[in-house]
Amino acid sequence: MGARLRIAFQGEIGAYSEEAVLGLFPGAEVVPRPSFEKVFEAVESGEVDHGVVPIENSLHGSVHANYDLLREHELHITAELHLRIRHHLLAVEGVSLTDIRHVHSHPQALGQCRDFLKAHLPEAALVPAYDTAGAAKDIAAEQSATTAAIASASAAREYGLSVLASGIESNPNNYTRFLALSRDAETPPGHPADAETKTSVLYVPGHNIPGVLFKSLAVFALRDIDLFKIESRPLVGTPGKYIFYLDLAGSTGDETVANAIGHLEEIAAFVKVLGSYPAARIT
Amino acid sequence: MGARLRIAFQGEIGAYSEEAVLGLFPGAEVVPRPSFEKVFEAVESGEVDHGVVPIENSLHGSVHANYDLLREHELHITAELHLRIRHHLLAVEGVSLTDIRHVHSHPQALGQCRDFLKAHLPEAALVPAYDTAGAAKDIAAEQSATTAAIASASAAREYGLSVLASGIESNPNNYTRFLALSRDAETPPGHPADAETKTSVLYVPGHNIPGVLFKSLAVFALRDIDLFKIESRPLVGTPGKYIFYLDLAGSTGDETVANAIGHLEEIAAFVKVLGSYPAARIT
Repeated sequence: MGARLRIAFQGEIGAYSEEAVLGLFPGAEVVPRPSFEKVFEAVESGEVDHGVVPIENSLHGSVHANYDLLREHELHITAELHLRIRHHLLAVEGVSLTDIRHVHSHPQALGQCRDFLKAHLPEAALVPAYDTAGAAKDIAAEQSATTAAIASASAAREYGLSVLASGIESNPNNYTRFLALSRDAETPPGHPADAETKTSVLYVPGHNIPGVLFKSLAVFALRDIDLFKIESRPLVGTPGKYIFYLDLAGSTGDETVANAIGHLEEIAAFVKVLGSYPAARIT
Repeated sequence: MGARLRIAFQGEIGAYSEEAVLGLFPGAEVVPRPSFEKVFEAVESGEVDHGVVPIENSLHGSVHANYDLLREHELHITAELHLRIRHHLLAVEGVSLTDIRHVHSHPQALGQCRDFLKAHLPEAALVPAYDTAGAAKDIAAEQSATTAAIASASAAREYGLSVLASGIESNPNNYTRFLALSRDAETPPGHPADAETKTSVLYVPGHNIPGVLFKSLAVFALRDIDLFKIESRPLVGTPGKYIFYLDLAGSTGDETVANAIGHLEEIAAFVKVLGSYPAARIT
């Protein structure tokens, strides 16, 4: 029997990122780290086999901090997962909804459960915390009889809390896309027309090339390569310059995609292929 | 003498948004509101003359909540401002740096001042708050001798706090772009080649049109209209569909731009012009 894979993620045990780890690597040993940067470093040093980080949320957009780390570090995306974020109201065993005077969670989670809180706990004070699993851990440690946390079902299991209410988020279309990161690229085969694989690219358009944004997209359009995502972001420190996040159909293992990337390099000031990997469906 | 303009913003007095209001409308009467939605409603109802909301930050990206409100409400962008975010460490008069045991602020602000806190207050507990100005207001109300807040210089003035340290953010390239919103469009003249005006557009590419993303950008490229920003965002609730945020050079008061928008409408399922307005420089 092989050794279990060790997978790093940012946060406490019971974080949504831990659910993403187990979705991508069932049965793996989860290795919590205090920051995204520490996740990248753990993969690079070989301390863990892979890392898992969030890259975008359907309500809040791209996680720019992780795009910055992908640009700075030499890791490769080898898989993705769309995780439906389901929030739960957790409290110490024996505490009921009517006992609750304070609700602790990450401010985004408190905001996402606004309708439930207004309807069921209109008098409760909302207390922002650094993360959802940390809030659950704290109320378990204090054994508070008047405080609840909003966190994941796995946080309830981990910290021995009871679930007072499930699926309390206002908007069910709350998905976070996670990436698996590895020291080595895996580059599956995959023709763009099949849309079974995806390639993520960062690039900065070349200076002094008229219409360079349009031309940079033409390298894909002229080869019938569909784009899943395009986002421009001002390049911090250089006003008027932009970096682009691009997800396209197909793998760099396919000649058409490889040619398109080569063509992009002709007209871009900077190109970095972050990886080719199986495209995940939202389930 | 005319009546002072009344301008709504989200947050407490002393918020960075209030600085943006006074940058866009010097001498105006500031009208705080508890949420972005309440800002939009105050403008629509005529209770205020204009509203000011953040739309993107150089470190954290687009404020999707305000793009959603721009889509849902019938308001027009009439101006923009890039505000450099400078954080300050504030405390009650007479308190010095060595007295501080707790630092309260919005989690983003705490994160942005990580290096300063590590160097000067390594032992202090960091306490997340809903907003920076609210944290300043709270420590002033409590007259705490051991607590500091990270907030704006105007929060220090408003709540009578002394400034223990200024410009404590790690990254000086921290800018938030704010928009002025009005009931009526102003539509200045402005040829795209001058890049003195900007037009913001939301659109959803038409279904079943091959290469529609590329074609939607061609309507601008074929007319030599530069783009300042392009961002795709998954359309919540409809997997595989995207809405695009576009900022382009020129005003819809210019015939070339108006023709390009007309061309976009031919191939898009949904187009909404959010306004044409003078393009602001980052200062």
